[in-house]
Amino acid sequence: LRQLIIGFTLSCLATGAVIAQEISPQTLTQAASLRDTALQSDIAWDVLESLTTEVGPRMAGSPADAKAVAWGQAKLTSLGFDKVWTEAVTVPVWRCLHESAYIESPFAQPLTIAALGGSVSTPKGGLKAEIIHFNSYEDLVASPANSAKGKIVYISNKMERHPSGRGYGQAGPARFMGPAEAAKKGAIALVIRSVGTDSQRSPHTGMTNYEDGVKKIPAAALSNPDADQMDRILNRNKNITLSLNIVTETAKDTVSYNVIGEITGSEHPEQIVAIGGHLDSWDQGTGAVDDGAGIAITVAAAKLIAQQQRPKRTIRVVMFAAEEIGVFGGNQYALVHKDELKNHIIGAESDGGAGNVLALSSNVGRQSLHAIDAMLALMAPLNVVRSDRVSGGSADFGPMVKAGMPAVGLEQDHSEYFDIHHTPDDTLNKVHPDQLAQNVAAWAIFVKIAADWEGHFDR
Amino acid sequence: LRQLIIGFTLSCLATGAVIAQEISPQTLTQAASLRDTALQSDIAWDVLESLTTEVGPRMAGSPADAKAVAWGQAKLTSLGFDKVWTEAVTVPVWRCLHESAYIESPFAQPLTIAALGGSVSTPKGGLKAEIIHFNSYEDLVASPANSAKGKIVYISNKMERHPSGRGYGQAGPARFMGPAEAAKKGAIALVIRSVGTDSQRSPHTGMTNYEDGVKKIPAAALSNPDADQMDRILNRNKNITLSLNIVTETAKDTVSYNVIGEITGSEHPEQIVAIGGHLDSWDQGTGAVDDGAGIAITVAAAKLIAQQQRPKRTIRVVMFAAEEIGVFGGNQYALVHKDELKNHIIGAESDGGAGNVLALSSNVGRQSLHAIDAMLALMAPLNVVRSDRVSGGSADFGPMVKAGMPAVGLEQDHSEYFDIHHTPDDTLNKVHPDQLAQNVAAWAIFVKIAADWEGHFDR
Repeated sequence: LRQLIIGFTLSCLATGAVIAQEISPQTLTQAASLRDTALQSDIAWDVLESLTTEVGPRMAGSPADAKAVAWGQAKLTSLGFDKVWTEAVTVPVWRCLHESAYIESPFAQPLTIAALGGSVSTPKGGLKAEIIHFNSYEDLVASPANSAKGKIVYISNKMERHPSGRGYGQAGPARFMGPAEAAKKGAIALVIRSVGTDSQRSPHTGMTNYEDGVKKIPAAALSNPDADQMDRILNRNKNITLSLNIVTETAKDTVSYNVIGEITGSEHPEQIVAIGGHLDSWDQGTGAVDDGAGIAITVAAAKLIAQQQRPKRTIRVVMFAAEEIGVFGGNQYALVHKDELKNHIIGAESDGGAGNVLALSSNVGRQSLHAIDAMLALMAPLNVVRSDRVSGGSADFGPMVKAGMPAVGLEQDHSEYFDIHHTPDDTLNKVHPDQLAQNVAAWAIFVKIAADWEGHFDR
Repeated sequence: LRQLIIGFTLSCLATGAVIAQEISPQTLTQAASLRDTALQSDIAWDVLESLTTEVGPRMAGSPADAKAVAWGQAKLTSLGFDKVWTEAVTVPVWRCLHESAYIESPFAQPLTIAALGGSVSTPKGGLKAEIIHFNSYEDLVASPANSAKGKIVYISNKMERHPSGRGYGQAGPARFMGPAEAAKKGAIALVIRSVGTDSQRSPHTGMTNYEDGVKKIPAAALSNPDADQMDRILNRNKNITLSLNIVTETAKDTVSYNVIGEITGSEHPEQIVAIGGHLDSWDQGTGAVDDGAGIAITVAAAKLIAQQQRPKRTIRVVMFAAEEIGVFGGNQYALVHKDELKNHIIGAESDGGAGNVLALSSNVGRQSLHAIDAMLALMAPLNVVRSDRVSGGSADFGPMVKAGMPAVGLEQDHSEYFDIHHTPDDTLNKVHPDQLAQNVAAWAIFVKIAADWEGHFDR
């Protein structure tokens, strides 16, 4: 470690033109020690095991969501956070009561589907119609008016597997905007291939967005093997008639909560290093990778830092409400804390599962880039490298970053994330304890340096 | 190949005491050629693709089962089999209409279950009771009378992953006999960890056997992640209350059919080399590995042989009815063909999925072991070795083997089979085309030699 510290001191001195605030050798030493401790620590695993076991699935606004809020408060309190509180967030309440689909012809058989989040119901007893097939959302958009009149639109393109998760951006629009677009073309329902990379009978749900003034039509995702089945039938040049039965319910808005815990800073208690994940999950799995892992990683990083030495700045962990159904907690946080914006020294959310951190991105002022470099040097043994992206702060901190909060992004390996995300298979056994610990180690380095370094990240 | 043939000739001559019927060099050459052709052939894949796509799930006695029978006749006819016919099999009709379970306390959440095959229904609206946990079927058996009075028995042991599939024998009794045993101890229902090796939210069904004179109680399997969840709660020393709702239906017996196709032998048409798989599947998946693969492999092997040169003996492919629910097709076949037993020169069923053939077992007379060795020598490039087990002929040919029919077993790699078997995930994408082709190559060698060799396998 000594060489590392000397290297940094020299490097900082060598920057010349920019007046760089040095990072103390003690901070670097402590951060390295935290890294090594984190790799051996069970705290994150225990937090994740507790949340997924004792609460399980926790759709925003559901009774289980209220249990998750109580769990979050109790967990932060029992871990010794200095302050623990909640902030109310008004959330819509949607739930799926039934979802089923059948190929009626030419080859009668059941299909496995998940209603998309927010989907309206089919008419009572379901609907039955011929499908019209599009290879992609873009093909649907390009099709003529009324091309889908009275039909069920089926979009078949498969998400690409890639460590960056870039396939989500490519395949995602079918889910995000497909129902509205299909309705514009006259469709009575939409069925898409799951936006996911797995080969299992586990359809991926996730929020869809209707458009004002456009008819809301029911929408569901087929598991990948079921979509394969559809495609094989289409390859035979057969027309397909599907029946679809979706029963969902939208209740009155309710109140959920952002759950917040702080380790109070010793020298600059008003200055906040803000981290966290989202507490809600989809209804099918137990929300282990999405986003129990993010909660567990950030709670554990803060706890390990507090165990070592009280940080100079305050570390705030936010368990955001209702991210999945529209970033309600993140938006509310930005609203409530807008006068505190300047005190948010830097922020980051962990919401990419439990795969290893591969790269560190940032969105900070140049005068602080050497602090990011210092983090990266300490993360090198974790195989974390510099990202070439600008950090947007993830979903929940997005509004704060947009308002000016500096941010980093600890970019995770997404090779397997989209096998699991938003499916019944998002369960604890999909998390590798070693990868979870690698995340905590990287986060501890980032948070420790951000909290104890005397400089500022202002953009 | 020349060396191989010479080697065999010498080896046969060298056996001395046993009067061994030689295998002609032409047969060996042709078998080797078939092997190489099979590795490049799409026939088995096309058959499997057709069955799983055009029929899909096909529970014995269901409308889809009738479609499978029609499909089988049409497929064998279109492939040019000389004779194609059906033989009626009376089968019970059971189906599952609903299956759900919830942890009511201490941590309320839904569980993913599959009713065991043949399970009775819960009382209308379901039942709710505390569970009593046993680590294994053996522990349940050893527990005192009335130990489970009024409770739901939960058996938690996990099946071992092993290429031989031996874990099925160890974990299986919980499914096969658990409900009867639990009822004897006073239980009102049984829930077991799935007898399967996967980590997915895909519960494994499969037949259970009630006992005459013992109360029939509803029974279901939890997916492995759900069983993990139960175990984590039990590790907290918590009592668990479950609710369980299973609705099944047993209709009047109906008639299904063994579908049979023959390539008629040129010299000994009355002598039969009998192969096949079972046509029925469980209701959750599309029966790709269990046992679409067995149907496809054996049909393709027969077809490839017929394409090369008419075999001397008749090759008979049997698509057995209703194996899953109690080997009804296999038993009926043995009954109908008992007078033909002597003409069944040898038989084998493919019912172990689509993993590579690893070993060849047999149950034949010593005078024919060199023919098995000849098969093995030709299978060496496929990495098939001599098994140390005695072939029992698999489920459907079991009654024929018991009655005296010689048998071989092409033992497959079961490392991944029990991830899939009897689950919703038994779909075409779980079959590796290369492995399917390796199977066809091994089967073609066995069938070719058995059909053209002039010797007998009599035990």
